[in-house]
Amino acid sequence: MPPDPAIVPYIKPPYYVVIFTSRRTPGDNGYGAMAERMGRLAAAQPGYLGFESVRNSEGLGVTLSYWESPEAVRAWKDHAAHVTAQETGRKEWYEHYEVRVARVERAYSGPGERRHPTDWDVAT
Amino acid sequence: MPPDPAIVPYIKPPYYVVIFTSRRTPGDNGYGAMAERMGRLAAAQPGYLGFESVRNSEGLGVTLSYWESPEAVRAWKDHAAHVTAQETGRKEWYEHYEVRVARVERAYSGPGERRHPTDWDVAT
Repeated sequence: MPPDPAIVPYIKPPYYVVIFTSRRTPGDNGYGAMAERMGRLAAAQPGYLGFESVRNSEGLGVTLSYWESPEAVRAWKDHAAHVTAQETGRKEWYEHYEVRVARVERAYSGPGERRHPTDWDVAT
Repeated sequence: MPPDPAIVPYIKPPYYVVIFTSRRTPGDNGYGAMAERMGRLAAAQPGYLGFESVRNSEGLGVTLSYWESPEAVRAWKDHAAHVTAQETGRKEWYEHYEVRVARVERAYSGPGERRHPTDWDVAT
């Protein structure tokens, strides 16, 4: 089976993840286009490793972006176009969200494409 | 607005998160009942802080469980009933998944319920 393009494959720890859990307001209000633009822009930033995003029919979503370092996370948070998107997000697109920045210390894969041993790979 | 029950509110870092990104196989095959049982069982474990889960209509899902310590993460991974569920998951419920264990170092909230300052709260 080919790798699943919506799931970021195993990356050797340590690295960083931004976990964005959110509830959308009703209606699009320009959200779809901006989300797509931000996805493309993020992928062009230094230290970017990957992106996963799921939203269900009730508007609950989780977006995960993966980064090489805390400096890369901070630079993306402070990117001018992203700052503008964040402001609109707070005002229009989200009823609520939580952001958590975390250091990935261990990782392993389930069935399907395997790129590494399946047991824990401890961060150096 | 009351807090969103599907979103784990701000918790002061540091703490741990298990990020489970997965693609479901077609059909239920006992998955729904087991997922519910595992959710209840996880919530009863020492060091459990909370749980978020989203799956879309294409079977792509992200489940996040939050824990006080790496020891609590490990104990839940090794819990006998959970080990059985993991085995069935690899064989029947998931086409592919990635698991990442990460230490949450910073966190902040968006609009709605506010429990803390909105800027970054650096882990001690």
